[in-house]
Amino acid sequence: MSSPAHRVSMGDSWSRQVHPDIESERHQPSFNVERLTNILDGGAQNTALRRKVESIIHSDPELSLKDIYFMTQNERYEAAVKKKFHIQMIAQRLGWLEDSLELQYTYRAVSGDLGLSLQHIFLKAVRSLGSEEQIAKWAPLCNKFQIIATYAQTELGHGTYLRGLETEATYNADTQEFVLHSPTITATKWWPGDLGRSATHALVQAQLICSGVRRGMHAFIVPIRSLQDHSPLPGITVGDIGPKMDFEHTDNGFLRLDHVRVPRENMLSRFAQVLPDGTYIKLGTAQINYLSMVVTRVELLLSEIIFHLQKACVIAIRYSVIRRQSQLRTSDPEAKVLDYQTQQQKLFPQLATAYALHFMANGLMEFFHQSYRVILDGDFNLLPELHSLSSGLKAMVSEFCTQGTELCRRACGGHGYSKLSGLPSLVTRVTASCTYEGENTVLYLQMARFLVKNYQQAQASPGSTSKRSLPQSVAYLTAPDLATCPAQKKADFLHPEIYTRAWAHVAVRLIKDSVHHLQALLQSGADKHEAWNQTTVIHLQAAKAHCYYVTVKSFAEALEKLENEPAIQQALKCLCDLFALHGILSNAGNFLHDGFLSGAQVDMLRTAYLDLLLLIRKDAISLTDAFDFTDQCLNSALGCYDGNVYERLFHWAQKSPTNTQENPAYKKYIRPLLQSWRSKL
Amino acid sequence: MSSPAHRVSMGDSWSRQVHPDIESERHQPSFNVERLTNILDGGAQNTALRRKVESIIHSDPELSLKDIYFMTQNERYEAAVKKKFHIQMIAQRLGWLEDSLELQYTYRAVSGDLGLSLQHIFLKAVRSLGSEEQIAKWAPLCNKFQIIATYAQTELGHGTYLRGLETEATYNADTQEFVLHSPTITATKWWPGDLGRSATHALVQAQLICSGVRRGMHAFIVPIRSLQDHSPLPGITVGDIGPKMDFEHTDNGFLRLDHVRVPRENMLSRFAQVLPDGTYIKLGTAQINYLSMVVTRVELLLSEIIFHLQKACVIAIRYSVIRRQSQLRTSDPEAKVLDYQTQQQKLFPQLATAYALHFMANGLMEFFHQSYRVILDGDFNLLPELHSLSSGLKAMVSEFCTQGTELCRRACGGHGYSKLSGLPSLVTRVTASCTYEGENTVLYLQMARFLVKNYQQAQASPGSTSKRSLPQSVAYLTAPDLATCPAQKKADFLHPEIYTRAWAHVAVRLIKDSVHHLQALLQSGADKHEAWNQTTVIHLQAAKAHCYYVTVKSFAEALEKLENEPAIQQALKCLCDLFALHGILSNAGNFLHDGFLSGAQVDMLRTAYLDLLLLIRKDAISLTDAFDFTDQCLNSALGCYDGNVYERLFHWAQKSPTNTQENPAYKKYIRPLLQSWRSKL
Repeated sequence: MSSPAHRVSMGDSWSRQVHPDIESERHQPSFNVERLTNILDGGAQNTALRRKVESIIHSDPELSLKDIYFMTQNERYEAAVKKKFHIQMIAQRLGWLEDSLELQYTYRAVSGDLGLSLQHIFLKAVRSLGSEEQIAKWAPLCNKFQIIATYAQTELGHGTYLRGLETEATYNADTQEFVLHSPTITATKWWPGDLGRSATHALVQAQLICSGVRRGMHAFIVPIRSLQDHSPLPGITVGDIGPKMDFEHTDNGFLRLDHVRVPRENMLSRFAQVLPDGTYIKLGTAQINYLSMVVTRVELLLSEIIFHLQKACVIAIRYSVIRRQSQLRTSDPEAKVLDYQTQQQKLFPQLATAYALHFMANGLMEFFHQSYRVILDGDFNLLPELHSLSSGLKAMVSEFCTQGTELCRRACGGHGYSKLSGLPSLVTRVTASCTYEGENTVLYLQMARFLVKNYQQAQASPGSTSKRSLPQSVAYLTAPDLATCPAQKKADFLHPEIYTRAWAHVAVRLIKDSVHHLQALLQSGADKHEAWNQTTVIHLQAAKAHCYYVTVKSFAEALEKLENEPAIQQALKCLCDLFALHGILSNAGNFLHDGFLSGAQVDMLRTAYLDLLLLIRKDAISLTDAFDFTDQCLNSALGCYDGNVYERLFHWAQKSPTNTQENPAYKKYIRPLLQSWRSKL
Repeated sequence: MSSPAHRVSMGDSWSRQVHPDIESERHQPSFNVERLTNILDGGAQNTALRRKVESIIHSDPELSLKDIYFMTQNERYEAAVKKKFHIQMIAQRLGWLEDSLELQYTYRAVSGDLGLSLQHIFLKAVRSLGSEEQIAKWAPLCNKFQIIATYAQTELGHGTYLRGLETEATYNADTQEFVLHSPTITATKWWPGDLGRSATHALVQAQLICSGVRRGMHAFIVPIRSLQDHSPLPGITVGDIGPKMDFEHTDNGFLRLDHVRVPRENMLSRFAQVLPDGTYIKLGTAQINYLSMVVTRVELLLSEIIFHLQKACVIAIRYSVIRRQSQLRTSDPEAKVLDYQTQQQKLFPQLATAYALHFMANGLMEFFHQSYRVILDGDFNLLPELHSLSSGLKAMVSEFCTQGTELCRRACGGHGYSKLSGLPSLVTRVTASCTYEGENTVLYLQMARFLVKNYQQAQASPGSTSKRSLPQSVAYLTAPDLATCPAQKKADFLHPEIYTRAWAHVAVRLIKDSVHHLQALLQSGADKHEAWNQTTVIHLQAAKAHCYYVTVKSFAEALEKLENEPAIQQALKCLCDLFALHGILSNAGNFLHDGFLSGAQVDMLRTAYLDLLLLIRKDAISLTDAFDFTDQCLNSALGCYDGNVYERLFHWAQKSPTNTQENPAYKKYIRPLLQSWRSKL
């Protein structure tokens, strides 16, 4: 029942001794931490494999994350490509395959600080949208790095709204080529990763024009740089978009196409084809273009976004048992800041969220795998629900993780502002996820459309046939509802049944409310688009409540399956309770609005919530240890397993170029300033 | 009635023509923009002076902010010191004095991107805590830059809790010197600006030990670097703390003192003295140490924090009338994103907040000036209220500005993530204000203690005498309250009387609730500290509601004074209404909890709120123009007055070192990778 061994330490002089203030937190954990790690990894064999990969990666000095906080954008880029190169060599040597767990664990071990990673997105798109011949041709080229590919969709003047993209691909039947062209400055492709300085090929999303008819967005493989000397090919203007809030390791780029010609075979043609004579044949639905975005979005949750919040929790909670401030009792020494209720109130809801999102995303991933194959085979029935869930949940996950990571950062006070804490880069990186792969508001509203449609459908035909046909994630829209919450004492609020139904009630009420407002506007004669626009603030609220409901429900269901691990189940149940109740308290107005909860019930619920903070306090370090991030991967002076915070912060700072390089301002400005008065004497 | 001339443009080729999509927004403004600018500046003469300063600053190439987004930390530091040096020369030439409006406007024009600015904080502290002799000695040295001084308070292991600081100053009567010493690693001074590489002197906060007795925190002037060659003086270890989330232009530093001796005269002695023989004499209250922090906090609001939100609003709102996305009506072209309700819902509450905070901070500044002189003269009656207001409102302002700036950034989609938008640096810089000059949670709780104390006092002696003695900011605690809100239709919610009373009601209820919880715990036998700790989440909520009430009230009062400017009054009233109602909707649970508002009233209020968004839409560009930030000071490719967003973004990116320097990864890694397959052929 001991906590996991400190397998991969920083290897510095402080690692040898664990700080007593964190050591004491690990005495007598209420559950087996190692077993929880196994559960999070999806099995003990995965944990073992991950650790094996981590020890390979962390023992290779070329793959160290050391010093990245001191690097310029150019240095970050070079280091990230270098790492990709070395990992490619290791993968070849050890036979790690594309999409293998080994490569996923490698990505985690180096905190995603790798170049040339759009190759993966390109390949996913080819597999989703390409014919079997196209997959057979391009996949091996990517896997062997005979080409470096990227995915070029967004433009300088156009983002999430695919139909607004201006890049054109005009078919020329005489030469059997497509002519790709950027007709305006706003048509410049802008943001694709690896495009700025690396890629040799781009999958370009462009408006297909075929025999003079616009056919909408299609994907074209376009060579952009010479495979011989890497210079831009004729008609191509390409470069880097410059400094960003983060992602400095990635060369996000721009691309202008001046009548660039590619062969007919370069249009991905699983769902649409252009015959040699220019005949256009459609094989899928209009929505199929979104499929590769759905794939990317679902994968991102677990492989990229949620990790940031988990790491931030680990760092902030570990630091909070070392940091001491003020006295809780006059006779005592200064107290650990984690013993303050306000610190618990900042951090534990984030920890609960980190776990909730993990289990929800796992559930979504399962649903995704079930439906993806079916869709590829041409049955599009599940696509709307998959699109709705992947959109809304990506928005919620990125919103919560961004907010939570920043809260964790601020909970570390001034030191959380130092890059050496590792927290600033977690924040500036995860906040990008609110925008990439679909801007969050747009995504929530995609989900809202699905909710409106299904609610209306349920209302239109309230018979049993219709109920059966509602997609599973919205089946609760027709379930029997309670008018008021039956909870009578604070312990009642710790029943998953109680809070899950509370969330269901509020989600249904808000969806209903949004539909009614929409219908009222339409009936008063408003234009369809205008009516939608004037109700979007309300739709947004409904979609968010639905997402919260889905997450509470899936967390509670995941816990039910842990009946063989009662201690873990108990510890996680506190987090599930906290996640649900914290959400209710933060949105209490929605629950009080129609009297579903009374003010007295909210007070009881708050007491239950505050009690949970104390319960979770005891397990806090074990619950963060269970994520099992290595010190190297956290790369934080505040967050190492051993708790030697101040020594490491002091020592790391000494290595900063601001200390190792001469003061560039002294001779030029400071000395003249200080001595200017003398000349006047 | 025309909009202000585009006085100080970027001077690039796009500045010559204003984009028609923003030009059309400036047709027929509902109010005189120039007059509103004058009001914000505090008079037309201030506007004129500010613009004069701006044209001096912006015409000097040494003071340009161009290229700062491409610089390393060392380059940023050098540039910031260079600017300070040049400004000092200008100030000498033109006779600009310390604390003059000219220097304040200079600071604004260069966006605070200046080195050596802790001189100002040092001087404030000397003026607050020093004797007249000390002020006479040190102020001229600072003003002439014969020394470069900083203020060293926080330590590696200690922040907001002053009593926990470990640095010691032991008085030696034999030599009449204080011996300053850092006894542990956690005692290392950490974070002071200008300390890392610039300062020659530090005002060190240390525990005074006098004849063996600990006397608490006192301030000592300690020389740390040679005035001859800038090397650290004996016993001094000093350096830079390394990379941060922002503030890269500032050399935040660390300082270790090894038995460093300073003369007796170097202890600031307005409120406490050590006589030659070691006798300790106290001349003020224990709280007096906080006075210089109060000064700094109040000044920060207007000079530093609120600007960030204002600028973010300018950039995001200007961009939102250029950016077009999707269609609002099928027949129309793509719509300006500012016409979407969700975009209005993101940006207009921020704009309203930016104005609300401006007027509230002005009011606070007035109160501060009234009370500061009195306190310096030894009458401490107003200190607790000043401390409470400056603490709580600093916390609220920094919290709202941080949240709002990030919302504005995200509202610009992908381009808001580019540093060239100017938005990332606004976010990463303003978020520091949640921590510096007092961590926000601690500050809110300082205010909460004041609220509890006054509430209890009002309860203890409910007679009229006691009522008169309540400080003015909490006088409403004893005012007659309404049990339910009298609003019956949506228009009722646009009466300042209605929403101000609603906020008063909720604040009083929450303060009362927090006191009752605290008393209940004490009565059940809990220790005083423990009872406080276990109710802090509730106290926090009460303090936040009080801050919101104070702000709504002061915004509404400021508007009343604009009766001679009815058009401006009308435009600002929409913002005041929006600020108040947005706050109620975001915290609806608190208003519904005891039935003060009913669900139906909240729905009405929401309709009133949504209607306001449409009203503000018409004035949005004028309301942001009125802040009158120059293009140079915004330093944003998205936010220039002329609206030529895409051209500038494209052009600025070309100048990035990632485009002007050779690809550092191609020969080393990319070429070998691409060609590795060939060697296997």
